[in-house]
Amino acid sequence: MSGTASSRSRSLVCRALDVLAAFGPDRPELTLSEISRRSGLPLTTTHRLVRELTAWGALERDPAGSYHIGLHLWEVASLAPRGLRLREAALPYMEDLYEVTHENVQLAVREGLEVVYVERILGRGAVPVLTRVGGRFVMHATGVGLVLLAYAPPDVQEQLLAGPLESWTPETIVTARQLRSVLAEVRRCGYAVSDRQVTMDALSVAAPVRGAGNEVVAALSLVVHADGAQPRLLAPAVLTAARGISRALGSPAARRRESPRSPAR
Amino acid sequence: MSGTASSRSRSLVCRALDVLAAFGPDRPELTLSEISRRSGLPLTTTHRLVRELTAWGALERDPAGSYHIGLHLWEVASLAPRGLRLREAALPYMEDLYEVTHENVQLAVREGLEVVYVERILGRGAVPVLTRVGGRFVMHATGVGLVLLAYAPPDVQEQLLAGPLESWTPETIVTARQLRSVLAEVRRCGYAVSDRQVTMDALSVAAPVRGAGNEVVAALSLVVHADGAQPRLLAPAVLTAARGISRALGSPAARRRESPRSPAR
Repeated sequence: MSGTASSRSRSLVCRALDVLAAFGPDRPELTLSEISRRSGLPLTTTHRLVRELTAWGALERDPAGSYHIGLHLWEVASLAPRGLRLREAALPYMEDLYEVTHENVQLAVREGLEVVYVERILGRGAVPVLTRVGGRFVMHATGVGLVLLAYAPPDVQEQLLAGPLESWTPETIVTARQLRSVLAEVRRCGYAVSDRQVTMDALSVAAPVRGAGNEVVAALSLVVHADGAQPRLLAPAVLTAARGISRALGSPAARRRESPRSPAR
Repeated sequence: MSGTASSRSRSLVCRALDVLAAFGPDRPELTLSEISRRSGLPLTTTHRLVRELTAWGALERDPAGSYHIGLHLWEVASLAPRGLRLREAALPYMEDLYEVTHENVQLAVREGLEVVYVERILGRGAVPVLTRVGGRFVMHATGVGLVLLAYAPPDVQEQLLAGPLESWTPETIVTARQLRSVLAEVRRCGYAVSDRQVTMDALSVAAPVRGAGNEVVAALSLVVHADGAQPRLLAPAVLTAARGISRALGSPAARRRESPRSPAR
C-alpha cells in the first residue's frame, strides 16, 4: 500500500466492504477471527472495522459474540431498485400467478454472467427448488437465465458462450451451438423453457419483464414438476403476469397489444 | 479530525457509510452533488468514495449519471437474520393468513424505538396501509409496535414512555399512563389491537413471533377495514400464523400447547 491519502482511503473503504463480503449464504454468522481469515485482513484491522460497522448498524453482534449482517444495512439496501423496489412492483402479479397455479413463482435479474433471485413464492406441494432470495445461479440452465441471456447485450452473450457451460443434469445445455439456437428460439417465442436442466424433477417456464425504457430488466418464472408439465399451456399465465409487472414498471411495450407466438409455428 | 491513522480510518469508513445513508425512501436516486450535500462531505471526497462504492457494487450509476443503491449491497444485506432470513421463515405462514383472509399481512421487527417492516402482503381490496418493506414507523400507534414494545426490555419501554407520543388520529394513544395500561393488556392477552390509531379507516391485530431463545423477535399483524372489524375474531388466525413462524424459528414456547386468553376474561 502506498502512503498517499488517496490510496490509503480507497484501501480502507475497500477493506470495510471486504469485511461485509466475508459473510455469505454458507456463513451468515462469523466470529471476529473468522472475518479476519475470510477477508484476508489482519486481526487488529478487522477488529477496528467491525467496531465501526457495528456502531453504524451494518453488522450486529449476538450475545455469544458472533457477528451477522445488521438490519440498518438491510434498510439502506432495500432502496436498491433491482432488489426490494422491483419486488414491490412485482409481488401482486406474482401472487396472482401463485393463486392461479399454486406452483413456485420466481423473479430474477441478471448480474454479470449470473442470475440473482430477488423474489420467490414457494408452492407448498410444489417441486423443491435450489434457489433462495438474494442467491445466485447460472444463466444457461435456468428458465429465468435463458430469458435474461436471450435479451442481454451481445458482448454478455459472447462472454458466456465462450466459457465452459457447467452441467447440472444430463439435460443441461452444455454446447455453445445448442445454447445459441435456444436463445434465438426464446427471442422468437417470447418465453423460455428449462426442462429438467437444473434438476431432473423440475421444469420452468420464464418470461421477460421490461422497464420504462422497454429494456428487459428481470425475468419471471413458474417452476413445476417436470412429469406431465405442458410448457405451452403454462406460458400464457407467465407471460400475462410478466406483462402486468412490465406495465407497473412503465414499459411502453406492455401497453401495446401483443400476443405470444407459439414455438411450434 | 485528528491526524492519527486510527481516527482517519474510522472517519473514512464512517464517511463511506454516510454516503450510503444519504439515500432514503424519499430519495432513492441521487446525483453526485446531491450525495455531497446530503452527506455533508466535500465534493472531492464524495466523488472518490462514490467511485469505490460503485466499483464494489454498493452503488450503481444509471445512464443519466444518477446513482442508486446497488444489487451487490442488497445481496450481502439479504443475509441479515432480521431481514430476508426472517421473512423467508415467515412467508409461508403469512401466505396462509393472506389466503384465509385476503387482508393486509405485515411482519415487523423493533429497531431502537421504531418498528421496521420486513415483509408485507397487500390484499387487493384491502384497506390502504402507509408502510413499505424496509420502512420505519412509530411503535405506540401500530399493532406490531404495541406488541414489540410490550415485550421489549424495560429500559426501552421507559425511554419511549418518557418521550412525546406523536398523534396520528384522534384515537392514537398519547399519554404514558394509557400506553402503560395497553402494554399490560397486550402481555395479558398475548396480542395487540390498534383501532384507528394510525388512520381512521384501519384496524390491526398483531401477535408476537418468538425466536430460538423464546425472546420476541418480530410481530405479525393483519390490517383490515376498521368498520365492522372484530379483533377477537381475527386474533386466533394471527396468533396461529405467528406460532407457526415461531416454531419455524425454533421457539420452545411454540412447541408447547398454549391457548390465548380472552381480553374479556
